[in-house]
Amino acid sequence: MKESFQLQDYLTEKKQRLERALPDYLPTSGVPPLLKESMEYSLHAGGKRIRPILIFATLESFGKDPMIGMPVACAVEMIHTYSLIHDDLPAMDDDDFRRGKPTNHKQYGEATALLAGDGLLTEAFRTVCGLDQLGVESKTILKVVRELSRYAGPQGMVGGQMADLLGEGKQLQLAELQYIHQHKTADLLIFCIRAGAHLSGANKEQLELLTTFGRNIGLAFQIQDDLLDIFGEESKLGKPVGSDEASDKSTYPALLGLEETNRQLDQLIAEAKSALNQTGINVEILHALADFIVQRDR
Amino acid sequence: MKESFQLQDYLTEKKQRLERALPDYLPTSGVPPLLKESMEYSLHAGGKRIRPILIFATLESFGKDPMIGMPVACAVEMIHTYSLIHDDLPAMDDDDFRRGKPTNHKQYGEATALLAGDGLLTEAFRTVCGLDQLGVESKTILKVVRELSRYAGPQGMVGGQMADLLGEGKQLQLAELQYIHQHKTADLLIFCIRAGAHLSGANKEQLELLTTFGRNIGLAFQIQDDLLDIFGEESKLGKPVGSDEASDKSTYPALLGLEETNRQLDQLIAEAKSALNQTGINVEILHALADFIVQRDR
Repeated sequence: MKESFQLQDYLTEKKQRLERALPDYLPTSGVPPLLKESMEYSLHAGGKRIRPILIFATLESFGKDPMIGMPVACAVEMIHTYSLIHDDLPAMDDDDFRRGKPTNHKQYGEATALLAGDGLLTEAFRTVCGLDQLGVESKTILKVVRELSRYAGPQGMVGGQMADLLGEGKQLQLAELQYIHQHKTADLLIFCIRAGAHLSGANKEQLELLTTFGRNIGLAFQIQDDLLDIFGEESKLGKPVGSDEASDKSTYPALLGLEETNRQLDQLIAEAKSALNQTGINVEILHALADFIVQRDR
Repeated sequence: MKESFQLQDYLTEKKQRLERALPDYLPTSGVPPLLKESMEYSLHAGGKRIRPILIFATLESFGKDPMIGMPVACAVEMIHTYSLIHDDLPAMDDDDFRRGKPTNHKQYGEATALLAGDGLLTEAFRTVCGLDQLGVESKTILKVVRELSRYAGPQGMVGGQMADLLGEGKQLQLAELQYIHQHKTADLLIFCIRAGAHLSGANKEQLELLTTFGRNIGLAFQIQDDLLDIFGEESKLGKPVGSDEASDKSTYPALLGLEETNRQLDQLIAEAKSALNQTGINVEILHALADFIVQRDR
């Protein structure tokens, strides 16, 4: 298989299908127009839609129709989008631009941005319930609702955001940095893969192996981010690679050096694939996605 | 029945049971301690717990064990609490105190308050799923999840917050003010009563009548708030009742005058009770609650 070419097609097709479906899952009436506009502004701002694609890919790996995952895929984009909107607020990272556009609060003001985030987060759970119209059993839908709350909530992504906030300007230990990566980034990826697995009727062992897969590619994703930050900085500031003094943020390269960071990155991906290989499902697409995640640029 | 005395006992007992159960529904591990503390700070800050009590009361009116509603009762307090935390933020109402204590962001900073709100909102949905441990069918739980998202989200409470924000400093029409009251306040009360009804196996007609009941007492609740604001202002500023120039907020008394406001308040409660009387359930507690809601002070 000519992986790279086919994967690009796969990513493009699935991203398009997601973006075509997304408007169907937002309420069409009864929402103050400015709130709706603000929610849509960020939701339709693009991105690679990696999280939804992980749901589709997992379903396909089990031989299922990937489109059964659409309500969860749309819900997870709402969750991811709300987290970006709130993260960009002045009280958090205070960012003015995202994906080349003004951030939500720059466009609509802080109060509307706050409510747009709250709205997307709340609406995500109704969106998941749309699985029932695709014939998914209530019991399975409830599992997905529960895990979305678990992996996006205080024990998951919100917890990771908090730890990240508390770690700012501090020299973190590796374990603390791992906690942040695991929860801020990996948890939502784990959710996507587990949701796809639940919808495919995966057994307990498969769920555990896929959770390992998701955790590892999530951690790899975040380490890759650290590396891209350095390379980005190098071209921008003309500083040598590995110079981390410009930022007071703890990173893998700063803690472990560049060589060890790259070694750990390779190991995470190797372990991810090893877990995947034990599931007995068709691993082709998920393998390619794992490789893609550590090759991507932003 | 000596309503007032018995109702006070009922309110006290149910509030205590709610507050004893609440900690059981928050995650005990894996949450950054400061995030957990901040969530608990606001969740345990008291209040009358009217929303949970409406759930218990509805179940009891159908002859069911009110304690089956506990997971929903705790979830709705998480939702109500998150909305207060976010509403108090500087970007919104910028309040320093609530219930005699510093607001969440005054105590923990804006970023933590934002995340505590996000955490409570997200955790609420997992909390609802706890109904399965009380033997509730998955299908019924899903109905409750869907309605919580509907009534708390962009078509519900978040939409009401947005409309309230947009209406600040403007002279609103009565219809606009009703939209705000309906969604900012009534929707979560309607959710509580409908959740209790779903858990009781209510039929469609009963659900509709109870929705009318909930909407009416919600609107009455908010009009009563407007009236209390005036009376509070009078004693504070020594201004005559009905003088609304001190605030740029549109209110029922400002739009309709005091006499017509009181007339509408009475009518809302009369219609609420009339709807309730047609349900065929035991109306005693809900009648008493409707009276309580328009008599309460803050």
